[in-house]
Amino acid sequence: MFASFRIPNVAVFVLMLSVGSNAVASIWNTVPDETLDALELTRDASTAELYQALSNRYTSNLTEGKYAEWWEPIPMDMYMAPTLYYEPPASLDMEVERGQCVQCHEGLTHGWVKSWEKSAHANLDEIRELSNDDSRAYKKDMIVEVEENLRAQGLLAADENLSEVSCIDCHMGVREDRGNHATALRMPDRAACGQCHVKQFAEAESERDTQKWPQDQWADGHPSHAVDFIANVELATWAAMPQREVAASCTMCHNNQTKCDTCHTRHEFSTVEARKPEACATCHNGVDHNEFEQYMFSKHGTVYQTLGHEWDFDAPLSTAISEGGMTAPTCAFCHFEYKGEFSHNVTRKVRWGFLPFKNIADNIDHEWFAERKDAWARTCQNCHSGRFAETYLAMMDEGIKSGVELVEETRAVVESLYEEELLVGQKTNRPDPAAPIEPGPGAFSSLFMSEGNNPTMVDRVFAEMWEQHIARFMKGLEHVNPGGWTYSHGWSDLIRDKTFINEEATRLRHAADIEKRIETLEGASSATGYNNRLHDVTATSSDYTFRLGAGLGILGGGLLLGGLFSWSRARRGPRSTGSARETY
Amino acid sequence: MFASFRIPNVAVFVLMLSVGSNAVASIWNTVPDETLDALELTRDASTAELYQALSNRYTSNLTEGKYAEWWEPIPMDMYMAPTLYYEPPASLDMEVERGQCVQCHEGLTHGWVKSWEKSAHANLDEIRELSNDDSRAYKKDMIVEVEENLRAQGLLAADENLSEVSCIDCHMGVREDRGNHATALRMPDRAACGQCHVKQFAEAESERDTQKWPQDQWADGHPSHAVDFIANVELATWAAMPQREVAASCTMCHNNQTKCDTCHTRHEFSTVEARKPEACATCHNGVDHNEFEQYMFSKHGTVYQTLGHEWDFDAPLSTAISEGGMTAPTCAFCHFEYKGEFSHNVTRKVRWGFLPFKNIADNIDHEWFAERKDAWARTCQNCHSGRFAETYLAMMDEGIKSGVELVEETRAVVESLYEEELLVGQKTNRPDPAAPIEPGPGAFSSLFMSEGNNPTMVDRVFAEMWEQHIARFMKGLEHVNPGGWTYSHGWSDLIRDKTFINEEATRLRHAADIEKRIETLEGASSATGYNNRLHDVTATSSDYTFRLGAGLGILGGGLLLGGLFSWSRARRGPRSTGSARETY
Amino acid sequence: MFASFRIPNVAVFVLMLSVGSNAVASIWNTVPDETLDALELTRDASTAELYQALSNRYTSNLTEGKYAEWWEPIPMDMYMAPTLYYEPPASLDMEVERGQCVQCHEGLTHGWVKSWEKSAHANLDEIRELSNDDSRAYKKDMIVEVEENLRAQGLLAADENLSEVSCIDCHMGVREDRGNHATALRMPDRAACGQCHVKQFAEAESERDTQKWPQDQWADGHPSHAVDFIANVELATWAAMPQREVAASCTMCHNNQTKCDTCHTRHEFSTVEARKPEACATCHNGVDHNEFEQYMFSKHGTVYQTLGHEWDFDAPLSTAISEGGMTAPTCAFCHFEYKGEFSHNVTRKVRWGFLPFKNIADNIDHEWFAERKDAWARTCQNCHSGRFAETYLAMMDEGIKSGVELVEETRAVVESLYEEELLVGQKTNRPDPAAPIEPGPGAFSSLFMSEGNNPTMVDRVFAEMWEQHIARFMKGLEHVNPGGWTYSHGWSDLIRDKTFINEEATRLRHAADIEKRIETLEGASSATGYNNRLHDVTATSSDYTFRLGAGLGILGGGLLLGGLFSWSRARRGPRSTGSARETY
Repeated sequence: MFASFRIPNVAVFVLMLSVGSNAVASIWNTVPDETLDALELTRDASTAELYQALSNRYTSNLTEGKYAEWWEPIPMDMYMAPTLYYEPPASLDMEVERGQCVQCHEGLTHGWVKSWEKSAHANLDEIRELSNDDSRAYKKDMIVEVEENLRAQGLLAADENLSEVSCIDCHMGVREDRGNHATALRMPDRAACGQCHVKQFAEAESERDTQKWPQDQWADGHPSHAVDFIANVELATWAAMPQREVAASCTMCHNNQTKCDTCHTRHEFSTVEARKPEACATCHNGVDHNEFEQYMFSKHGTVYQTLGHEWDFDAPLSTAISEGGMTAPTCAFCHFEYKGEFSHNVTRKVRWGFLPFKNIADNIDHEWFAERKDAWARTCQNCHSGRFAETYLAMMDEGIKSGVELVEETRAVVESLYEEELLVGQKTNRPDPAAPIEPGPGAFSSLFMSEGNNPTMVDRVFAEMWEQHIARFMKGLEHVNPGGWTYSHGWSDLIRDKTFINEEATRLRHAADIEKRIETLEGASSATGYNNRLHDVTATSSDYTFRLGAGLGILGGGLLLGGLFSWSRARRGPRSTGSARETY
Repeated sequence: MFASFRIPNVAVFVLMLSVGSNAVASIWNTVPDETLDALELTRDASTAELYQALSNRYTSNLTEGKYAEWWEPIPMDMYMAPTLYYEPPASLDMEVERGQCVQCHEGLTHGWVKSWEKSAHANLDEIRELSNDDSRAYKKDMIVEVEENLRAQGLLAADENLSEVSCIDCHMGVREDRGNHATALRMPDRAACGQCHVKQFAEAESERDTQKWPQDQWADGHPSHAVDFIANVELATWAAMPQREVAASCTMCHNNQTKCDTCHTRHEFSTVEARKPEACATCHNGVDHNEFEQYMFSKHGTVYQTLGHEWDFDAPLSTAISEGGMTAPTCAFCHFEYKGEFSHNVTRKVRWGFLPFKNIADNIDHEWFAERKDAWARTCQNCHSGRFAETYLAMMDEGIKSGVELVEETRAVVESLYEEELLVGQKTNRPDPAAPIEPGPGAFSSLFMSEGNNPTMVDRVFAEMWEQHIARFMKGLEHVNPGGWTYSHGWSDLIRDKTFINEEATRLRHAADIEKRIETLEGASSATGYNNRLHDVTATSSDYTFRLGAGLGILGGGLLLGGLFSWSRARRGPRSTGSARETY
Repeated sequence: MFASFRIPNVAVFVLMLSVGSNAVASIWNTVPDETLDALELTRDASTAELYQALSNRYTSNLTEGKYAEWWEPIPMDMYMAPTLYYEPPASLDMEVERGQCVQCHEGLTHGWVKSWEKSAHANLDEIRELSNDDSRAYKKDMIVEVEENLRAQGLLAADENLSEVSCIDCHMGVREDRGNHATALRMPDRAACGQCHVKQFAEAESERDTQKWPQDQWADGHPSHAVDFIANVELATWAAMPQREVAASCTMCHNNQTKCDTCHTRHEFSTVEARKPEACATCHNGVDHNEFEQYMFSKHGTVYQTLGHEWDFDAPLSTAISEGGMTAPTCAFCHFEYKGEFSHNVTRKVRWGFLPFKNIADNIDHEWFAERKDAWARTCQNCHSGRFAETYLAMMDEGIKSGVELVEETRAVVESLYEEELLVGQKTNRPDPAAPIEPGPGAFSSLFMSEGNNPTMVDRVFAEMWEQHIARFMKGLEHVNPGGWTYSHGWSDLIRDKTFINEEATRLRHAADIEKRIETLEGASSATGYNNRLHDVTATSSDYTFRLGAGLGILGGGLLLGGLFSWSRARRGPRSTGSARETY
């Protein structure tokens, strides 16, 4: 599905080939080789070529994914994934000129106009006049860079400067003069922002290319902002949920792939905002990837909170310490940095990823991981000695490995219960999950779906263990929040999970034994003719359910057997024969 | 119980009738018709009439409520509900004059003096001299307004201006010159503040009048700040708790009805404070009404946190965006607003209320709700398009309805277990709750009281589900915090509750079946003469408890049966025959 | 183990005796008599004598403690307890002079240089030139004080002023000129900072002397920052944990005894930072000692958050209200204060301590506690009336006592289950905990270690109850956060714990009864010859486990009996015969 505003880009591309051919510029250092290779470009490609290649790849990869038949978008998706779903307001047949947007919306929706008025977009001349010792002076270069990008694309004459970036540039097309709300209105996606901000677009998109795991721990490019929309829609649990308005909350974070304003909130698009830790908090908090809380409770975070008001957040990350007065790192400082350079590829030092899988733990000394560890040690050395950094990182790795061991020990207990069919209600009241989810113990779907005795509490607790608690434990270690990895959360939570599951194992095996002993007694009793409970006149129909179950040596049951087949399906599509196991 | 300082008000009223009769003022727009109707006033009533009517109604409605016989106030209540309980310090027989308060307390309790020194009360002249382009200039009008109110009440001469608002004005009586600590000291309540701030008093009190639910989902005026004290004391669980110092924590939030400094902390009474989200946080956080956390993690909240230091919080809400530089809404901005006006009635757009009851979900398209939804969409349009606002609100409603469904499904399971008397210990060890609470499954009291097996974990978990988790789920949706409604809390918590309760249902029914089968075997065995366990010489007394229970077909028991009658009663009063069911 | 930098101190001491003997100064008021008595000094001792006595005691008490044989330090401990573990980097054979540190590290680790550049240490002259009405002017006196301390120690000539405090002063020795990284580098501990800051060192160390409980509720000096390292290493659970990198998180907070930069983060050592509540947050948050969250949600905390940006945190605590504009207390304000004086002994008003033990509740009216309560009331009277303060404190005490009662009631249930060996798997699958932990129900170790069915969920939940939830309940009351003590946490959590444990008691006793009844039936059945299950050909080996267990009248079992002896031991040392019960 292509939104109409894609077409101008194609026109631009043709234009570029004719007038832009001598506007050749070298590609910036912060765009990694891996990306140029993937796009089949060399470093002397023009920014117009780079933009077009990026934009084409971006659009073709932004799809509903492999589970598209199981779910349907809701109206709100128009705003969360505009490339796929945005439609201009058909009933608003109103042709407008460039200058009219602000004029009219000042009255209608003044909040967004006021935000824009504060933005760099509305103040290009003010920025051009900044003295060189103003911490925002680097933005002067950015304006020049954008202008060169536009010239390369044939959108700005060689002798012309950009006078403003106004509503119409983003919402109808860069440098457009007029358009009709009903047909021309668009909602900007990454590629729309990237048309001017080619370098930043390329950096962000390069996460697809640099994040390639040596033992296939994750698919190429995963986990990263560059693929976070597709990562979500290809999660079987998300696709299977019938409550689409509930599932929509996932998309509200998984939309870095689709938009840039998840970090640079429209319409101020403030770099100050994006540099502060709270900008990351909406998504990076909570039950598993709680980096925000971990950071805020670390000494790094408390220094930010107590002294950060004196720091100059207008300074770019590269001079934040030397010029901006920053005395503790922020999220952006450490995660945008890679070997001394700062870029929008925030995954170049990723080692443990989102979850500490066993196949990461087992390979953590592999050179791919070791090189990234060295890069981290270098980051720490902005403020700490090399020995300190390496000592901490080594401790962190050992700690995480201990956590992985706990999970694996417990996984074995859960799998054994499942294989022996000992989970509560497993034989009588455990409907298969909705497609495209595959059945299995302790699945991710345990966190979001429940029907009959699927999941049981063993499933649920183990899902929390392998997906949430181990992640928090790791994030605590990674962000140096002591209470976060042992005392208040982390290790202590994992131990609780293990305790619960060990206890359930004992209880469930004991219950199975009791069942057998009673059956044996009943067999003996029946044989003697003193009791034949199957004909007990007091037995109710629900008793029979249990008796049938009991006859099969089961544990639980009791809810209607009909429930086995009653799990609601997602709104669209038939049940697939495909497999989507999200157990671990 | 009337505090002594009520009497001057009566005197004032008489005075007003004589000298204030021509001080008629039109009642401000922000006081809704519903309130004037309820007070039997017309819009050309004087502010003195309005004040007196409000004050009379206020005082007569501030009582200990229908459960008064079951509980007794504690000394701390003197400060939390001064209208009811404050007594001047009898031993402090010290006559003082207006000027002496600050002089003496500067030494004794300098903190409160320093706070007051920063307040508008201590700086009337400074405010009068503000230039008109100062964002606080609107306070000049407020001083004039207050002066007119006092003139209407005969407390300020026509040619006189207010020179200060000092300790004695609030703590002994407006414009008093002297008084004795032991007899004249008072602790200001809403009506005391309202004597000068009539408009704000009327706005706040109007919540009683505008919050009338079309299908009686809540009692008139509920839930709102204007009735939050009575709402608390008429909660059976609160009234029943014997630990009054623990129950006092409820009153520490449920005191907006009794005082104004819950938001405008004494003695600075800062509007800047009250306009910031943290001012709401003391009460609006936690296990259910966690609006604060939801907001702070939303993009609205993160923009406030990253850029809010540049906003001018001295600007009134009405110009916060246009003049104050606010680029994201605060609590006060959205909740004080109604159709473009801002007032202290913060419930005029309430639709789902405190909890998403089924009878709200079933009626959410009724015009009463639709009109309020439109009012919300208008609020959002300060910054968002109408289409965006409506799309979001529609998604929110659908999401909340899905949550309500989960609760109702689970409620049916809990009720069925209770009706079949299958809950752990239900037949042997489930004492009735303390009066005035009525027995029932999953009651609110499960969160605060426990004796024997009342509540069981099924009760407790269901109480958490219908009272806490569904509320958090809803608040997450309402405040646009994605992790708050699905991932970290909300839906995932509800699913956990359902999983637990479904599992318990299976276990409890299975246990009942096991019991029956053993009984049958015992009957058979006994019949053969090989075993008559009732006479087993090894049986202990606690065995007998179980055997007796078993004979009745029960599940649990085991704690002393005497416990059935041992639940502590609240400190005052006999057990009522009245009913106070707080199950749902 | 003495680090090499201790030796110069001894040299200094000798020096002091010769040249410093007439540099006698009176010991400051803020150093309590108890400390002088303990050090066998009089109030006219010189600061050099005081420093030497403090330093000697400090070093001799900083040990690995009584469980040292069970655990081994990890490399990271070098930074967390440098007195014990720091070794200079042997491979870095580089002799440097005073001026070279900054020069070289500006390039290598510029972050720490930039921090130091902001510190008072780097700006002595700027401080000396402050006008007397600058809120930092008190620092001028501090410089003079430090200079006198150094003169008393023979480290500064009588006519000389301190020109700077640079890297080498702290990391090689005060006033040293040169040194080799490989041999002379040190990591400063409390005593190193204390060499210049003798008064602050003495105040902080005085916690050992003033915190002596009247009924031996805690050991002398406990709980306090001055002994927090030893308190940790003498915790059996900590010593027993085989995962030393996980246990390290404890040390990351329990290092106030070892260093000063836990509050005054290196290398800015900002007093502004240390005065703000967030400085305490890294350690004082979370599952039990969550003072930070309690404060932030209290009105005290919300006033700080909404208005604190206008307060002058450069003002010392003693003038924070009168001069600094502070209108709500911070952590430091209340906890550093004692009878109107402010010092680094933050435990002089401690009454309930870290946990509200029964033997505190039972003695809370004893004069030792009453005197401290009076001291608290005086603190509150900075801003509140005496009556208000006393009323609140009395309510708080009553509330805490109610919580203690709940814990004690529940403890009796847990102990009874344990004594009757009814806990799940207690007879078959409950390995002893690793040494030096002693076996017992509901132990602290339940929070961090799990093997087989030790702990059970009853143990775990009770450990959470007595160690975490009661603490949070108390902290909520103490910090006036209403949701914190009843509604969102606190009381409601305690009730949940009690509910769970009461329910388990019923279930476990019922299960024991079922077991007996089946055994009886089996005995009867076997006697008749119709069934002899011990020879049932379908029985598996795990069945036998249960049967054996069943024959012994047990409940659980099922995991390998071998597991009983497989609990991992800590890395070092044999199992002690000593006792380390951390049950309660």
